[in-house]
Amino acid sequence: MDQQFASDNYAGLCPEAWQAMAEANAGHAPAYGDDPWTARAADRFRALFGTECEVFFVFNGTAANALALAALCQSYHSVICAEAAHVETDECGAPEFFSNGSKLLVAPASGGRLTPHAIRTLATARGDIHYPKPRAVTITQPTETGEVYSLAEIRAIAAECRALGLRLHMDGARFANACASLGCSPAEMTWQAGVDVLCFGGTKNGMAVGEAVIFFNRALAEDFDYRCKQAGQLASKMRFLAAPWVGMLESGAWLRNAAHGNACARDFAAMLDGIPGVAPMFPVQSNAVFLQAPPAVLEGLKERGWRFYTFIGGGARFMFAWDARPERMRALADDLRALAAGAICQG
Amino acid sequence: MDQQFASDNYAGLCPEAWQAMAEANAGHAPAYGDDPWTARAADRFRALFGTECEVFFVFNGTAANALALAALCQSYHSVICAEAAHVETDECGAPEFFSNGSKLLVAPASGGRLTPHAIRTLATARGDIHYPKPRAVTITQPTETGEVYSLAEIRAIAAECRALGLRLHMDGARFANACASLGCSPAEMTWQAGVDVLCFGGTKNGMAVGEAVIFFNRALAEDFDYRCKQAGQLASKMRFLAAPWVGMLESGAWLRNAAHGNACARDFAAMLDGIPGVAPMFPVQSNAVFLQAPPAVLEGLKERGWRFYTFIGGGARFMFAWDARPERMRALADDLRALAAGAICQG
Amino acid sequence: MDQQFASDNYAGLCPEAWQAMAEANAGHAPAYGDDPWTARAADRFRALFGTECEVFFVFNGTAANALALAALCQSYHSVICAEAAHVETDECGAPEFFSNGSKLLVAPASGGRLTPHAIRTLATARGDIHYPKPRAVTITQPTETGEVYSLAEIRAIAAECRALGLRLHMDGARFANACASLGCSPAEMTWQAGVDVLCFGGTKNGMAVGEAVIFFNRALAEDFDYRCKQAGQLASKMRFLAAPWVGMLESGAWLRNAAHGNACARDFAAMLDGIPGVAPMFPVQSNAVFLQAPPAVLEGLKERGWRFYTFIGGGARFMFAWDARPERMRALADDLRALAAGAICQG
Amino acid sequence: MDQQFASDNYAGLCPEAWQAMAEANAGHAPAYGDDPWTARAADRFRALFGTECEVFFVFNGTAANALALAALCQSYHSVICAEAAHVETDECGAPEFFSNGSKLLVAPASGGRLTPHAIRTLATARGDIHYPKPRAVTITQPTETGEVYSLAEIRAIAAECRALGLRLHMDGARFANACASLGCSPAEMTWQAGVDVLCFGGTKNGMAVGEAVIFFNRALAEDFDYRCKQAGQLASKMRFLAAPWVGMLESGAWLRNAAHGNACARDFAAMLDGIPGVAPMFPVQSNAVFLQAPPAVLEGLKERGWRFYTFIGGGARFMFAWDARPERMRALADDLRALAAGAICQG
Repeated sequence: MDQQFASDNYAGLCPEAWQAMAEANAGHAPAYGDDPWTARAADRFRALFGTECEVFFVFNGTAANALALAALCQSYHSVICAEAAHVETDECGAPEFFSNGSKLLVAPASGGRLTPHAIRTLATARGDIHYPKPRAVTITQPTETGEVYSLAEIRAIAAECRALGLRLHMDGARFANACASLGCSPAEMTWQAGVDVLCFGGTKNGMAVGEAVIFFNRALAEDFDYRCKQAGQLASKMRFLAAPWVGMLESGAWLRNAAHGNACARDFAAMLDGIPGVAPMFPVQSNAVFLQAPPAVLEGLKERGWRFYTFIGGGARFMFAWDARPERMRALADDLRALAAGAICQG
Repeated sequence: MDQQFASDNYAGLCPEAWQAMAEANAGHAPAYGDDPWTARAADRFRALFGTECEVFFVFNGTAANALALAALCQSYHSVICAEAAHVETDECGAPEFFSNGSKLLVAPASGGRLTPHAIRTLATARGDIHYPKPRAVTITQPTETGEVYSLAEIRAIAAECRALGLRLHMDGARFANACASLGCSPAEMTWQAGVDVLCFGGTKNGMAVGEAVIFFNRALAEDFDYRCKQAGQLASKMRFLAAPWVGMLESGAWLRNAAHGNACARDFAAMLDGIPGVAPMFPVQSNAVFLQAPPAVLEGLKERGWRFYTFIGGGARFMFAWDARPERMRALADDLRALAAGAICQG
Repeated sequence: MDQQFASDNYAGLCPEAWQAMAEANAGHAPAYGDDPWTARAADRFRALFGTECEVFFVFNGTAANALALAALCQSYHSVICAEAAHVETDECGAPEFFSNGSKLLVAPASGGRLTPHAIRTLATARGDIHYPKPRAVTITQPTETGEVYSLAEIRAIAAECRALGLRLHMDGARFANACASLGCSPAEMTWQAGVDVLCFGGTKNGMAVGEAVIFFNRALAEDFDYRCKQAGQLASKMRFLAAPWVGMLESGAWLRNAAHGNACARDFAAMLDGIPGVAPMFPVQSNAVFLQAPPAVLEGLKERGWRFYTFIGGGARFMFAWDARPERMRALADDLRALAAGAICQG
Repeated sequence: MDQQFASDNYAGLCPEAWQAMAEANAGHAPAYGDDPWTARAADRFRALFGTECEVFFVFNGTAANALALAALCQSYHSVICAEAAHVETDECGAPEFFSNGSKLLVAPASGGRLTPHAIRTLATARGDIHYPKPRAVTITQPTETGEVYSLAEIRAIAAECRALGLRLHMDGARFANACASLGCSPAEMTWQAGVDVLCFGGTKNGMAVGEAVIFFNRALAEDFDYRCKQAGQLASKMRFLAAPWVGMLESGAWLRNAAHGNACARDFAAMLDGIPGVAPMFPVQSNAVFLQAPPAVLEGLKERGWRFYTFIGGGARFMFAWDARPERMRALADDLRALAAGAICQG
């Protein structure tokens, strides 16, 4: 299949991840994480974050988020999130399932972003036992609309959380893209800003499968290994989850891949400049471009074989993975331009 | 690490699985199973079983079993299993977790095997609402002790299940080894014998990760895709779970790998012939050899660098994967022989 | 404590319920529902509804609703409800807990009422496995704001549910009040209109404790007795849950109590006529009066010892139980009038 | 129905509980436990135990036990119990349900009793993440077979729990009977002996419904009110759960009732002296008598209208409630004697 921009999940493994897989495939290794690759990957994460965090490797982002939130909550607690949060809109109730009932409290009209004010409003709206007790906040960095919280924003959110007795979780399905976007260190964006637990996405970053759940607040990681095992998230041949991380982290591919995706998104947005009726819906701060475009134009794109997700109200999402190629981006932009011109002529 | 026989999870990917992964890694593919590899893998399973079964790909065996059982039960139901069943002894309560409370009813003194009689005894012991209502039976094929149910035994169990209104699940973490052992078709051992749902293990068969959940009773598969998604078992880059199956099934490696493991187990058992104090604990019918051996011998093996699991009462388990090498088996047998001789001298 | 109108839960048992309790307390009776009172209460319900429904007695409304919904859904399903639905706002996540994760889909800006259109909009908004699959609809009759769905409205909702493959649950915490309000039969408002399962509230109707879960769609009641038992909702001395129902149903108190509460609410609303700044927020159709009133007035009421719930935006709720006394209602109305007059003078 | 000895659940409310209900039924009271009766009942418990324990009122014993254990465990933890423990044999998987999967580890051949040794054996049998991690121990006092742990035994169990990092729960469905039997104070048998949380049974002690969950380790009670609410165990008209406790505790009926039941059990056992083939199966230490008797005798009792539970192997259970009457006991004993004589003649 020709390269598409429907999702960064359409891309395969980057060479660094693949190479590490290949190396890990030589010979035997103990199962269930008791192997050198797993230890090395965890150590690499600790080095990357510059702190003695607890690191766990799970299969996918839904599990990573749901297990991390379940570690922060009991069933009668609630989790504050933005309206567009992946945990709310695209995980099929996984947070409720893994926690056995924790409710997501969605900040109304928040789009992809939370603010201290919105958190406080939700956290203090009810104080009686007839409603789940707020216990955690989750933010997605970058957000589902491709925007990036600044360090100051994260710190402000974390400060509000502490004031309210809430724990702070970061859904970092595209965490590397946020790092590349802000040019800050992973430490600055997480524990130094007040994040308790991070889900660091590997799949969209260039791996086949795998996310890391990283507890900066180590007390919260108590028995998390049991939690993963019981929840069907302990890989028997763990080295194949761990080795790609080693490849990504040791080579720097994790950040290069992300920077490439981000640059492509910016480039693509620039290519659209001046196309009538077509405009980004949100600031392009990571590897996503959300476009407002006439329905006929989007329809036309689909007829020309382009795949992408659309949204109520007319938007289309384009994601740029580690392997995004300028010529395909150009082809897409050209098609958009041609279709938009046609739409105007028809209109 | 030198080859070990502690677990078939110590082995890596077989060449056929690896090659398919490599092919799947060329270019882009839609996410979440809407890709050609996934369709092809599912079709291959349908061809292999010769029936229009429903096929789902999940990450590991714990999830496969627990989700399949949850599809057969409500929380107030129970599942009948053998004492040594993996779901009871090694999945950290995953069946209870995914079903939100279904109880496992363990047939006492059953070792790894269930019988119609044991099933009937457990299923009819209680008929009041103060105890979970039996709703499913799970058998492991081959069993956790490496034995294989004959077709007649499976049919008898299935008949008893039907008579009692119970559904029949087969934990086939090493299903291929059972096929190779019995020399029967996958269809004969499953739906033709009365199995409702099978978990077909890929990891131990030569893949990095991945199991297939196969519903022969298709009504039971209703909304199972939602169940997998919610439970964190839907791979975004699904093709990397599916492609290795294509490689394994199309090449015949699934059966060759299993037959190799089985043959090695038999060969290894034969190598031990005449070693004093060392004897197989169970008939060697698949790729496992459980040995009774003097504690000093087992201790000595560990000192010489061998890894293996031991059991209360003095047993040691050796597993032979798709890549088991005769020279390592011979080395292990030689060490066993030498240690056993020494143990006798000391004794 | 003087009579209050904060909640119909402030009232005690009505004489008919009390008398039946007293009779049930004479001598011994088998436990767990195997007693004559339980059979008689269930039969009375079947007679009242004129159909062979399945009847279960549980302790409270939260459990009744949550267990009934759990019987309609799996964890990856969702339940459509109004914004103000008790299951959403006042059961502390019980529906999510008992179902192990079913999500409530709240119709935006729906207040206490659902419409076929709102149901269709929510039910069809998403059709992918990344979001819980709609499986049930719950309506509260009368609603949390004291309004009553007409028979035509219920029939239209039920028709929409059938068209969409959804099951229909009715939260009837004050079901009797709705019957008294519409003057229709319980059958007309439920199974004849298309309701699958009803939670019929006893506590607010004049009992100490106890709700009935009534399945008109009897297939959905399969193993519901086990579900109740596992969920801690099977009373050992069941006759004390059942006997009050006998007293209420055989004497007609269930309807008389409700009619009295409804009449009081209407009377109270009438007493407020002409009080400046004080007006009902919703049509008074059952035993609730929600008032819009100046904050100073509500504050003044509290200073004078009145208890009531207030809502964001200034409303206050007054509920009239089976024992509401005109003189206390008059006293409250007088206080309201006096305070409102004062508020105007100050203003 | 004539008095039976099948279960102490066959009895109704004792006069003291009834009288308190009647008093609570005068006038209005705030809902959900914010009423004077609830505060008074909780204070009475604190006075009874001589410590600042946290007290919660729930509907029944299954819920009390399951919620208490869920407060001690996460889903991947396990609870050690005796083979005959009510939580294992008669709560339909409620502990697994409320905890979302905690496994019960049953001490083999333990009958109704645990020992420090049995606890240690189970707690240390597995130390890997493939099996649920032991986190709590539950003992039933008196046991399901009517025996009573001595203070020394409880202290020894508690010491073992502390050494192993386990929390100690006491299922006191008939707690009062144990107090009456040992003649010790409630404090001595619980927190002074090392019990963390107690479920104090009210139903079998002479109430209609209601158990108290009492946390001596108050940290474990954090948010337990939310847990109860979410689990459908918060009574809206809470005073009717609380008032009977006030009646029982203030009048001393709780202990008198229990002492009466215990004395009746002893008396009944004495009445059987010398009946051939009929003998108590366990020491009679509370209000239960388990009898070994020929099948024909038990059959004959049933034909004469007696109700009782039988057990595999030929036992029959007789329970003596607060209202057990000597003439009925004598009638039962006479029937037993007559039938036993007949059985011998036939034999």
